[in-house]
Amino acid sequence: MSRLRRAYGRALDLRHGRIEMMHGSGGRAMAQLIDELFTSRLGNPQSGQGNDAAVLPAAPGRLVVSTDSHVVSPLFFPGGDIGCLSVNGTINDVAVMGATPLYLAAGFILEEGFPLADLARIVDSMARAATAAGVPVVTGDTKVVQRGRGDGVYITTTGVGVVADGEDWSGDRARPGDRIIVSGGIGEHGMAIMAQRESIGFAADIVSDTAALHGLIAVMRASGADIHVLRDPTRGGVATTLNEIARQSGVGMMLQESALPLQPQVAAACEFLGLDPLYVANEGKLLAIVAGDDADRLLAAMQAHPLGQRAALIGGVHDDPHGFVQMSTSFGGRRIVDWLSGDQLPRIC
Amino acid sequence: MSRLRRAYGRALDLRHGRIEMMHGSGGRAMAQLIDELFTSRLGNPQSGQGNDAAVLPAAPGRLVVSTDSHVVSPLFFPGGDIGCLSVNGTINDVAVMGATPLYLAAGFILEEGFPLADLARIVDSMARAATAAGVPVVTGDTKVVQRGRGDGVYITTTGVGVVADGEDWSGDRARPGDRIIVSGGIGEHGMAIMAQRESIGFAADIVSDTAALHGLIAVMRASGADIHVLRDPTRGGVATTLNEIARQSGVGMMLQESALPLQPQVAAACEFLGLDPLYVANEGKLLAIVAGDDADRLLAAMQAHPLGQRAALIGGVHDDPHGFVQMSTSFGGRRIVDWLSGDQLPRIC
Repeated sequence: MSRLRRAYGRALDLRHGRIEMMHGSGGRAMAQLIDELFTSRLGNPQSGQGNDAAVLPAAPGRLVVSTDSHVVSPLFFPGGDIGCLSVNGTINDVAVMGATPLYLAAGFILEEGFPLADLARIVDSMARAATAAGVPVVTGDTKVVQRGRGDGVYITTTGVGVVADGEDWSGDRARPGDRIIVSGGIGEHGMAIMAQRESIGFAADIVSDTAALHGLIAVMRASGADIHVLRDPTRGGVATTLNEIARQSGVGMMLQESALPLQPQVAAACEFLGLDPLYVANEGKLLAIVAGDDADRLLAAMQAHPLGQRAALIGGVHDDPHGFVQMSTSFGGRRIVDWLSGDQLPRIC
Repeated sequence: MSRLRRAYGRALDLRHGRIEMMHGSGGRAMAQLIDELFTSRLGNPQSGQGNDAAVLPAAPGRLVVSTDSHVVSPLFFPGGDIGCLSVNGTINDVAVMGATPLYLAAGFILEEGFPLADLARIVDSMARAATAAGVPVVTGDTKVVQRGRGDGVYITTTGVGVVADGEDWSGDRARPGDRIIVSGGIGEHGMAIMAQRESIGFAADIVSDTAALHGLIAVMRASGADIHVLRDPTRGGVATTLNEIARQSGVGMMLQESALPLQPQVAAACEFLGLDPLYVANEGKLLAIVAGDDADRLLAAMQAHPLGQRAALIGGVHDDPHGFVQMSTSFGGRRIVDWLSGDQLPRIC
């Protein structure tokens, strides 16, 4: 590093420095930013190669690729920040396909004037999340846009994983008689963001559930239960994800409102803001559609894992060519749980 | 599609419609945007799966992964647009590692108010470029940010490819005695953008060189020449890319100014704007560092390919622990060709 440091003249000022347009133009300033802020934190053999692409060992099995652009606002929120969110969210999209996530790529769009200290905090958070998950960031890119053409930082992460032959957890495999399990309390990520955005004092203890779920999923697979579909109910929440699965599979679903796991403070904050928790984003929860006979076994396996302690059976799948998702309410009635329409929560992830 | 169309109520207005915040919130409007604007254009079995990740056949060989965020301004320019640029640029980053590009993922950050007609034009351009290159877009993501938090559209593309064992075109393999070849005229992409941005009338016939280079690279490999390093000189231009290679390899380089292929109108526009073409971005050119004895053979193979017709030997590699890149000028002098410092051309790709 000392040779590079000499080449750059002086070190980046990580306390008071800010992103400038020249950090994106491909020259010396960009090389320094990548060396001193990114590679030093995300450091691993691949991202240190200095090439435009990472060369990695052959992957045994079918490839799984997922990409997600993260534009969450605010960048820092109770329980996390855009850095760990962008790592966990993409790992989860790969893992819910039944795959083993192997590598991440990260593209940063930085706004001129963004504090380097905040960027370092975000990259530190990415590094911790990637290390905890055992999924390294192997390559990346940085671009800079003028003030007023971005919002601090946007991060697009792409995940690459492998899935064994025969594993197929596509969204079209829900069947009548299946049961629906959610891995824990719903709406926590979305309400943590909203509570901060709207400065709701009584909701200040709601923390985002952002977490990488591949460890939980490994336990679920090891249970031997016949899992038909897995999904992480992020944007649009549980309601929208179930509608997607119902549409793909051509089945109906019936939820029990009283069975939905929901923290009291999340319920209170939703009521205060007029939001339905079924439509609020989660970032560390999953929905499992499982063969009816295997539901109890799967639930027990999930509850034995730290990220599934509050897992619950929330409903079942039935024959319905219209693909409606319904819910029997706590008052004994029934209502349609439609797709999210309109814009409940902008820039939640 | 008709069942979906019914579910959405009415079709997207691709002539007069604009991006709204609800197109990013994970609900019905987003599903419609993806179905009617993205999947219908980038249509292929994977992106039509409706899952958050694409499941793909096993890839034979070591994996190569590269990611690039594209923030080019303006979005449409002579010779291309952000759509084809984002496809070709990422394919090239994979291909210059000696790899076969297989798949692309694309993450879109859309600004509220952006015309759907422009978005459709961009996605059409991506689709054409991906089809021409034989590298499909297999998965994607869309997010929406408020007016004034973006600039129309940013696209982050990630490429996945495979490289056979034994192939190693890392940037640290340049050796004294090697020769340096560029595949054609330099500075064309950057000057096409600048001419449009600055409304330079006499430079209106400069068109971006954006192109996927893996076909040319296949021909180069088939020549049997001992290629040590390949790079595409994008941001920072030929000068910065050669400095990166010199740094990685710990060698010096000497260029011949008179040998640099340069279109007269590019030279004129550079002079008018006070820019050095060595630092101006290319999007369809590559630099090859090849064993000295094989240089003529490689050059002949390149010149026989449509994308290498104007390929030229531009210099050589020599022993220099300081890693300097120098140029003997047309006037018989010598100068140091340093890294780009400062910000010559913001948002060029």
